Amino acid sequence: MSRLDDTLRRIAPLDRALEATARAHLDNLTKPPGSLGRLEDLAARYCVVTGSADPRVGRKRIVTFAGDHGVAAEGVSAYPAEVTPQMVRNMLAGGAAVNVLARHVGADVQVVDIGVNDPLEGAEGLVAAKVRPGAGNIAQGPAMTEAEAVRAIEVGVELAEAAHDDGVTLIGTGEMGIANTTASAALAAALLPSAPEETTGRGTGLDDARLAHKIAVVRRALEVNAGRLGDPLSALAALGGLEIAGICGLILGGAACRMAVVVDGFISSAGALVACRMREPVAEHLFFSHASAEAGHALLLDGLGVEPILDLGMRLGEGTGAALAMSVIEGAVKVYNEMATFGSAGVSGQA
Amino acid sequence: MSRLDDTLRRIAPLDRALEATARAHLDNLTKPPGSLGRLEDLAARYCVVTGSADPRVGRKRIVTFAGDHGVAAEGVSAYPAEVTPQMVRNMLAGGAAVNVLARHVGADVQVVDIGVNDPLEGAEGLVAAKVRPGAGNIAQGPAMTEAEAVRAIEVGVELAEAAHDDGVTLIGTGEMGIANTTASAALAAALLPSAPEETTGRGTGLDDARLAHKIAVVRRALEVNAGRLGDPLSALAALGGLEIAGICGLILGGAACRMAVVVDGFISSAGALVACRMREPVAEHLFFSHASAEAGHALLLDGLGVEPILDLGMRLGEGTGAALAMSVIEGAVKVYNEMATFGSAGVSGQA
Repeated sequence: MSRLDDTLRRIAPLDRALEATARAHLDNLTKPPGSLGRLEDLAARYCVVTGSADPRVGRKRIVTFAGDHGVAAEGVSAYPAEVTPQMVRNMLAGGAAVNVLARHVGADVQVVDIGVNDPLEGAEGLVAAKVRPGAGNIAQGPAMTEAEAVRAIEVGVELAEAAHDDGVTLIGTGEMGIANTTASAALAAALLPSAPEETTGRGTGLDDARLAHKIAVVRRALEVNAGRLGDPLSALAALGGLEIAGICGLILGGAACRMAVVVDGFISSAGALVACRMREPVAEHLFFSHASAEAGHALLLDGLGVEPILDLGMRLGEGTGAALAMSVIEGAVKVYNEMATFGSAGVSGQA
Repeated sequence: MSRLDDTLRRIAPLDRALEATARAHLDNLTKPPGSLGRLEDLAARYCVVTGSADPRVGRKRIVTFAGDHGVAAEGVSAYPAEVTPQMVRNMLAGGAAVNVLARHVGADVQVVDIGVNDPLEGAEGLVAAKVRPGAGNIAQGPAMTEAEAVRAIEVGVELAEAAHDDGVTLIGTGEMGIANTTASAALAAALLPSAPEETTGRGTGLDDARLAHKIAVVRRALEVNAGRLGDPLSALAALGGLEIAGICGLILGGAACRMAVVVDGFISSAGALVACRMREPVAEHLFFSHASAEAGHALLLDGLGVEPILDLGMRLGEGTGAALAMSVIEGAVKVYNEMATFGSAGVSGQA
């Protein structure tokens, strides 16, 4: 059995009985029942996902996968493709937004070269796991072979397992890759399914004319790859970037290891969509961090039937939304663990 | 000149020129312009409020004012009035939700007896500033005299000034007081103005019948005090709780000291409404932390023309929403200070 098959098999529906136990504990804390709203939902969910009514937050980690996209040659991004390796180096130096926000919430950041079209020589601290130097141009053919997609997914699975071994209990997804909103829009259109007009947004900042062009490129990618969209894995190989496959793997591996997996924004949600279509119970393990300002994200979240935690108009990716949401989840678990009960604090209940 | 008058006089419209400087810096950081959404707004706003394009977050503090309400005798709360002093002791022991969330975000909590109907003997760590032992029953007459309202506001002003002297730059409001959603609903109805049906919610958890009764009590409070609602201070004295007056004062004092003031939920927003009606430029200094699930809060935020940072379905008060939002604001300031620029990181700009 392949590592991927084995991982998929280990992901089971969660034990919902634990939810009632967690809710009963939350209702006994010194606050009106339910008055902490989503914090209570998050704490109960964390219990269910990690399989314990005595939940602990261990280490926190954001895994940021970097990959290039041949489709960048079609002029679908406001930035040139050389920005991908430049931003990888910026992340390794700690100067990107994800580094700042991860430090702020006490999470570490792992930067993974899963498919950058640059040798990244001497890049210290980089997780070197290049499957291929960039995805193919999806407007002309498939992004990668299915074997490459499986390999990229397995990189993510392995990183989730390593994180689990390191004592990580909250793991967040992130990415960097010029043109990866194009790949995500194509994947979302194929898998939801939905129209390219609905799933395609301005990415890093396109004007109306370039947005129209980007939509046309997504439509072309769907036409060119029409014969390859029959199942989630082949659709991922046809349209997805290597970083999206890595995110899909991190999510699958995280779910298999019973970690709480925090999904970042639009591109990460595209990876989550693939993972959920591969194995339905995956959805129960995920925390969707925020509503991205990227058009198409709301549709994607609707398609997955989930409510994001934050809505701050962010659209940067990298794992920035996951970092902020991670802190909210940790706060919720602390509420669960550290608040006094009515009995212990000598506080009267409802009249 | 009274301390209150002096404080009001010190609050001036902010220097908007600083916003352009802050935005220019944010646009030079290694991310597409505007891609961090509200984080960028928060960072720019923090610069403007604190008067520096080189912003620093010093200490963070939540000030939680506790007060009782004679109107509790009308059966407007799901909990008995004795819960106010019980929760004060719980907060001093560190077992309340606000303690947990403040610790989580690195803020300290000051618990202030501004009007609890209990001597609170031997309560260690309590800020003893009782103006009177509970507000009067607003369904039968005024909550307090104007002199008492001024004194309670000045308690808040003094605590803001002391915080500023302690190196606090981010200060959050909080409260505890059984029946204080009733006082807040009455104040909001009087000052917005709006109908009691629109401003009154279920508080700690009333059923339909008791909610209808609460609305009738709010209407009665407005009728009984009709002659006292002509200006913000007299309305506050007529309807407001002592903790609401304290919050109003903390907000005014915080604005006068150029701290960033983070307003918690429904009751704190009622205090903010009074402060803003006393001196309009106050609004520019405030950060509204979250959209409370308490009915009436959305109306109040609309009336103030503000967008809250978080929307987590919380309705506990105490300063819990302020604590979480404070961490988001601090994260935004760190982004401003710690991210690399395109130049320093050698990252290419838009094509």
